[in-house]
Amino acid sequence: MNRNFGVIDLGSNTARLVVYEQDKQGLVTEVDNIKRGLRLSNHLQNGRMDDEGVAKTIHGMRQFKELLDARNINDIIAVATAAVRQAENGHELTQRINQETGIAVRVLSGEDEARYGYLAVINSMKIEEGITIDIGGGSTEVTYFRNRQLQESFSFPFGIVTLTQMFFQGDIPTETEFYQLRSFLSRSFSSCPWLMNKQCPVIAIGGTARNLAKIHQRSVQYSMDSFHHYPMTGWQLTTILEQLSPLPLEARRQVPGISKDRADVILAGLTVFDSLLSYADSTELIVSSKGLRDGILFETVWGTEAPTSIREIHERSITQFMNRYQIDKAHAYQVKEHALSLFDQLQAHDLHKYGSFERDLLEASALLHDVGRTINVHESSEHTFYLLSHVLLAGYTHRERLLIAMIAAFKSNKLLQSQLTKHADIVCKADKNLVERLGHLLLLARMLDRSMSQAIHSIQLVERDQHWVIECQGKRAGLLEYSLLDEPLAKLSKAWKLPITFLPVTDTDKT
Amino acid sequence: MNRNFGVIDLGSNTARLVVYEQDKQGLVTEVDNIKRGLRLSNHLQNGRMDDEGVAKTIHGMRQFKELLDARNINDIIAVATAAVRQAENGHELTQRINQETGIAVRVLSGEDEARYGYLAVINSMKIEEGITIDIGGGSTEVTYFRNRQLQESFSFPFGIVTLTQMFFQGDIPTETEFYQLRSFLSRSFSSCPWLMNKQCPVIAIGGTARNLAKIHQRSVQYSMDSFHHYPMTGWQLTTILEQLSPLPLEARRQVPGISKDRADVILAGLTVFDSLLSYADSTELIVSSKGLRDGILFETVWGTEAPTSIREIHERSITQFMNRYQIDKAHAYQVKEHALSLFDQLQAHDLHKYGSFERDLLEASALLHDVGRTINVHESSEHTFYLLSHVLLAGYTHRERLLIAMIAAFKSNKLLQSQLTKHADIVCKADKNLVERLGHLLLLARMLDRSMSQAIHSIQLVERDQHWVIECQGKRAGLLEYSLLDEPLAKLSKAWKLPITFLPVTDTDKT
Repeated sequence: MNRNFGVIDLGSNTARLVVYEQDKQGLVTEVDNIKRGLRLSNHLQNGRMDDEGVAKTIHGMRQFKELLDARNINDIIAVATAAVRQAENGHELTQRINQETGIAVRVLSGEDEARYGYLAVINSMKIEEGITIDIGGGSTEVTYFRNRQLQESFSFPFGIVTLTQMFFQGDIPTETEFYQLRSFLSRSFSSCPWLMNKQCPVIAIGGTARNLAKIHQRSVQYSMDSFHHYPMTGWQLTTILEQLSPLPLEARRQVPGISKDRADVILAGLTVFDSLLSYADSTELIVSSKGLRDGILFETVWGTEAPTSIREIHERSITQFMNRYQIDKAHAYQVKEHALSLFDQLQAHDLHKYGSFERDLLEASALLHDVGRTINVHESSEHTFYLLSHVLLAGYTHRERLLIAMIAAFKSNKLLQSQLTKHADIVCKADKNLVERLGHLLLLARMLDRSMSQAIHSIQLVERDQHWVIECQGKRAGLLEYSLLDEPLAKLSKAWKLPITFLPVTDTDKT
Repeated sequence: MNRNFGVIDLGSNTARLVVYEQDKQGLVTEVDNIKRGLRLSNHLQNGRMDDEGVAKTIHGMRQFKELLDARNINDIIAVATAAVRQAENGHELTQRINQETGIAVRVLSGEDEARYGYLAVINSMKIEEGITIDIGGGSTEVTYFRNRQLQESFSFPFGIVTLTQMFFQGDIPTETEFYQLRSFLSRSFSSCPWLMNKQCPVIAIGGTARNLAKIHQRSVQYSMDSFHHYPMTGWQLTTILEQLSPLPLEARRQVPGISKDRADVILAGLTVFDSLLSYADSTELIVSSKGLRDGILFETVWGTEAPTSIREIHERSITQFMNRYQIDKAHAYQVKEHALSLFDQLQAHDLHKYGSFERDLLEASALLHDVGRTINVHESSEHTFYLLSHVLLAGYTHRERLLIAMIAAFKSNKLLQSQLTKHADIVCKADKNLVERLGHLLLLARMLDRSMSQAIHSIQLVERDQHWVIECQGKRAGLLEYSLLDEPLAKLSKAWKLPITFLPVTDTDKT
């Protein structure tokens, strides 16, 4: 039986419920996601949550409970952050929620919140050293990690809602207001001297960060629909902030990509990012769409240990993808074996100069080449490209995801050319040759297991009279595969400018 | 347990194995498809299959068996057509196949073949009256149906391979050769006087037909990847034939879209279509990618009864799509109820002039609006559009499929505009208003069951003081849905230029 559970994040700006389904293999899939903009930080009066805030919270939680009841879900992980943590009557509030809805809300410490942000990033991004910043409505968490290990963390008691209240009076913030906000932030950051001059990427988490990515992607007509792992320069961030600052709220709401219910508080959020980049002397901001909830999820599903290597993250995310789209694993692993064996033997004979970067791409592509068949066996290459370029494969950059998608879906130069043209902002013409060559390797590897029965169990590349021969060690003579290898081999030979043929070797031949 | 089975079509030009998986609900999915170009018609010497033809057949069938064994499939439906039917030693051949591979091949009569073609078409196309023509390598089957019922059928003992052998000597067929072929075809058709001057669409089945669609779609850069139900005019067919005829074989092979191993026989095939259109005085040719194998499948899965109405075909194909992409059915049916109820009540109040065409589109869209969630809950509208515009929904024309996809995936005018632009060759600007209005109806209907718990069980549209009110009959007060209806209602009101609000009515209120 699949297990369903809900994760509720009662944030200071937004309350959100996410419903997950976990299958027998442990694979977790998000199946529903609903948010309510409660703005609880606005209901903190003299350190207490006011009656309206309490009522809104109870009402919102009751509605979430209704959705969970409708799905027969009793397994609920609920956490609350700054607004409830900071409210004197926070404990009364969680007790009332429990009485009225049965939901047990755990109030996170700032340190917990920071650690969950780090966990979300480290489990889903290819990055060795960085600063995470998660801006919520009423608090802001920062961490610093090196060699993927958490080094420092801190929680500031201000967020986009409270900073907006504190510093911005009118519709359009004044120069002075911005100056005062920046001064306040500098003073605040100085309580974390370990942030100073780190010169490493800043990873931005939370709704403000996702919205920043969306606004920027719209403005440059970015060719992928993915916020996670979206890289921006400090200069791009500053430009967006400068474009939005002089606009009245109504005009700001009309900016393409901006979230309408965030337009009033986004300036404070972007200023925090901008100030942090200055303080840390960083030039790169990377958006993470994984945050608090995902950190909780990683802890629940994988335990608190952060994985030590990006390799493990890759293996996990590829396995999840394979499970999710019901790949025939024996076939996929066999195709991977053949593809990597060819890659390595060509390398041993000094027939290419590729390294581990390209080998990893080929490996991922080989394991995932069949995902499109879930959609339909017809035009499955197109579907494979669609899935790999649209659905998050955690731990890879956008460029890597596209290269994997193109190699996995490689069928013809015509199709590849249209993909390269569409994504010319992410991949470049020089990638064409790489994709073509690895693509033909993969097509051959696939044909070597066309019957999906692992009838050819190993291959050996040998040189014979000016040309190369792939000796295919097979279970029997006359395998289906042998009658299908000529075409992919001819194309491979052409792409690699290398005359290659094959020779069947039956197991009994050698005994 | 899912049942897997293989269907083998030992044709006169091509042998093909298709592997299907049938789940407990009866849904059949194609999971593998492999073909071998055997050209058996070329091996008929004086009415006997020659030794080489026999050897190639045995070898090919053994390879199919290997693939089936690798998948542990023992359930095999194998049929042979003209080449084996016409060979004096056909019976010996099928006996040898049985001895050497265990596969029992059933040799189809020409009448069977014709009927299967008709069954494939009638079960997958929206057409009341038509002529089907299925050209194989060694025979050609025609049928005529009216009111979706089979009226006549016939099998001619010639196909693309044999006609090419008989009439075309050199690389480029001469005018005289074409003239002789056309004369021969006219004489042949005259044995079926029921074909003459029918003036109904000709539905072309088989590899030649699919290749024709591909060539034409390439030449006009058609915006959908779908051959089935692709409509062409007789003039378009004639133009392609005239473009291909003067080319030497090698140049013909380079024509975009042409199948390389069919380039030598395609001229004969296209001439047959062209002659039939003349003979039947038809101006419309519709390509069917469903053929013999699908007819067999329909017979196996649904029995031989052809469905009486397109409505049943639609219901079946929507249900298959829903099963395939694991839709929450209770929710989908509830959304459909709400959407159609709104549609009908607006109609009753004379607030729109739409009819059953639009109502059917709305119904299909409502049932299928969630298919994209199978891919990912994020950006699920985009995925819904991708699936509905890329995966065949049998029984609908291309335009209908796109309209359903656009209504089901409707989220914003921006997204719709990009879809309309991409498919401007199939849908037109005038469709925008329809999609927008039905799209907003559907968005409201979805929100009326946002908790997916059918908490609002019926709705009533009533007029009150110059504006319209939707009374929502719900199980309880304070439903999640009520706090989410304002936005879709405001947008609906704007799109329909109709002020609409809502009023919760709790079940107990009325007692």
